[in-house]
Amino acid sequence: MHFIKASIITIGDELLIGQVIDTNSAYIAQSLNKIGVTVNNRIAVGDDKNAILNALNVTCKQSNIIIITGGLGPTADDITKPLLNEYFGGNLIIHQPTLNHITDIFVNKYKRPLIERNIKQAEVPDVCEVLFNENGTAPGMMFEKEGILYFSLPGVPHEMKGLVDKYVISKIQHTFKTPTIVHRTLLTAGIGESFLAEMIADFEMALPNHIKLAYLPNFGMVRLRLTGTSEDEKSLISNINELFAQLKIKVQEYLVTDKDESMEVVVGNLLKEKKQTVATAESCTGGYIGHLLSKHAGSSQFYTGGIISYDNRIKTEFLDVPTEILLSVGAVSREAVEQMAVAVREKMKTDFGVSVSGIMGPSGQTDEKPLGMVWIGVANKEKVVSKVFYLRFDRSRNIEVTATQAINLLRLLIINKI
Amino acid sequence: MHFIKASIITIGDELLIGQVIDTNSAYIAQSLNKIGVTVNNRIAVGDDKNAILNALNVTCKQSNIIIITGGLGPTADDITKPLLNEYFGGNLIIHQPTLNHITDIFVNKYKRPLIERNIKQAEVPDVCEVLFNENGTAPGMMFEKEGILYFSLPGVPHEMKGLVDKYVISKIQHTFKTPTIVHRTLLTAGIGESFLAEMIADFEMALPNHIKLAYLPNFGMVRLRLTGTSEDEKSLISNINELFAQLKIKVQEYLVTDKDESMEVVVGNLLKEKKQTVATAESCTGGYIGHLLSKHAGSSQFYTGGIISYDNRIKTEFLDVPTEILLSVGAVSREAVEQMAVAVREKMKTDFGVSVSGIMGPSGQTDEKPLGMVWIGVANKEKVVSKVFYLRFDRSRNIEVTATQAINLLRLLIINKI
Repeated sequence: MHFIKASIITIGDELLIGQVIDTNSAYIAQSLNKIGVTVNNRIAVGDDKNAILNALNVTCKQSNIIIITGGLGPTADDITKPLLNEYFGGNLIIHQPTLNHITDIFVNKYKRPLIERNIKQAEVPDVCEVLFNENGTAPGMMFEKEGILYFSLPGVPHEMKGLVDKYVISKIQHTFKTPTIVHRTLLTAGIGESFLAEMIADFEMALPNHIKLAYLPNFGMVRLRLTGTSEDEKSLISNINELFAQLKIKVQEYLVTDKDESMEVVVGNLLKEKKQTVATAESCTGGYIGHLLSKHAGSSQFYTGGIISYDNRIKTEFLDVPTEILLSVGAVSREAVEQMAVAVREKMKTDFGVSVSGIMGPSGQTDEKPLGMVWIGVANKEKVVSKVFYLRFDRSRNIEVTATQAINLLRLLIINKI
Repeated sequence: MHFIKASIITIGDELLIGQVIDTNSAYIAQSLNKIGVTVNNRIAVGDDKNAILNALNVTCKQSNIIIITGGLGPTADDITKPLLNEYFGGNLIIHQPTLNHITDIFVNKYKRPLIERNIKQAEVPDVCEVLFNENGTAPGMMFEKEGILYFSLPGVPHEMKGLVDKYVISKIQHTFKTPTIVHRTLLTAGIGESFLAEMIADFEMALPNHIKLAYLPNFGMVRLRLTGTSEDEKSLISNINELFAQLKIKVQEYLVTDKDESMEVVVGNLLKEKKQTVATAESCTGGYIGHLLSKHAGSSQFYTGGIISYDNRIKTEFLDVPTEILLSVGAVSREAVEQMAVAVREKMKTDFGVSVSGIMGPSGQTDEKPLGMVWIGVANKEKVVSKVFYLRFDRSRNIEVTATQAINLLRLLIINKI
């Protein structure tokens, strides 16, 4: 089978000192993968001529496609464009449509004069095909050399995404014949990676060579992914569907979803289907559950709102948690979260209420209540259910895991499994 | 000057299909940078023997230190440990302290039997020094070969961090003499990258060779970073402090902070200093502002809580936004956010209230109100101030930018600049 291979080069000193996290590579890799292009490697280098040349010539030498992001901004620490111009033997010329676009943004929209730096953004090597960047001032560029396609894209995420979606994918599909890659992913909750592996060991052993299984643990849950590659699309899809069906049966006790989607999307879809609503009462997660439930488009259909009761006073005044409970068993207790879930549901007139209260760290523990202890409550009209978790991560991960587990508990109540 | 150079290799097919975002590299790069180690490059490769060997032998061949993360989990898609064992010519043996630790976790803590896969986690090459992983089951490993230090760490972020902090940094400092690298970073708001560059062009031109300036735009704000490298620590620090002071004066009109910290940390510190508190009333951000304000330790000193009024009904019932306002000018209006900010402040009895209401996309716009339109309100005892923004990103970035701008507006009210 003939694979089309790609490398991703991200440029920027900020990547090498760890000041920013590279999310661009993941987006590009996903997009390439969907059209059957295998990503060989990703490399991040600084704003340094030799490092960029080394990445182009050495690391990526086995790739058919090289996608470069970053290094195109208006300020002086950017050296990518002149380097590419030299590498492909071109001359820098003004790209008139880009200059018009830049003029429009600065002069017409921002009412600011066009300065030299802005104009330089419109320069491109005359040996490239310009990919017009409607979301920003730095144009994308495509080069071709010895059968290899090179794309140079700005590093600002939404500008990069716009160009990938609009040009890069179709240019690649137009140039290369790619094999079919199919992924099927499911999400499990309530079982650890090694026990899951034990449970499906026979299944994994019996997989054909062109289909692979991967374990992706995160947030106390494990995602399983089957990946198949073939030039025969039809038989690949039928093969992988059959194996995926077997896998689903093997893990059904722990299955959350048979799609590659997050816990909050699963729960949002369940609520939308049933035309039901939920409200949140958050202490230790400070709004993060509300954020997860509302971050996807369409969430206003099921997410009504919430109370962030960070201070105990808010638990009493807004969620009627009796002072006696706070004084006796405390805010991190079954009693408190059950009251919070019930109250927020009633007050916001929703079908479900979900609540959390815990000790996220790095301090706040007592003799009875260790760091990472968190109570989660969920309520509907008939009942309220609560569960305690003992997490052992740092503060930021404790918040994420708590939110995901709370949404999972809500899911179990919605589908009548608790 | 003699630089100590490092490469970071992250292993995992999930990185190449874009299923997870690599946050480990940023943490490792930051940690290395602080002790004067320059990161040459970062490379991500799949669970593939040749790709890993290629990364070790080619991409990283100019590095003194190679840090590998991932590929050490208990499941069958992991091949890193046997490969490293072979690469360094060792034999796999059971590491007894690790086996005891694993046994403790599974048998004593989780009350589950120890299975073969768990035991294999305790195997290490006899040519490595084991870095004991108290946060998980996969041990870290250190190898030395021809003057190069190799570290192999698990990919689970908090396990990796634990080993970096406890072992990796001190092992490196013990082995190499490193130059001093000093970064000074400041954050500006209210001015674009190219105008900022124009404003400080003379300053940038006059920088000495060993001190560099970088522009890091994000969330509609721009961070400026000076980086100096030298073997003479004392004069470097005095040089860079002097230049940084000049830079601060040049940009003072837009200066948010002269430290490398986020907007919410700046505001949290201001509030802690003044012993003041804030409450949030969020519509379109759905809890994200509350999350930002509460994600750092110590936030209970200033963050009281909030109302997530995602549904308009909640705006009326919990924040007293009159139905007439919703019917006439609508929820995305000056009138609505001003009432929300005032009401949440009064009801939660805090010094400040902050509110947002907007259209995050991808739908919901009207003829008068485009996608990305967002009103932000902030109130204290004396006054309420509001401002409208027109954002042009995707939903998730619109939420992030809105939250950061809201916290910036709160900052301006706290310091009496609006």
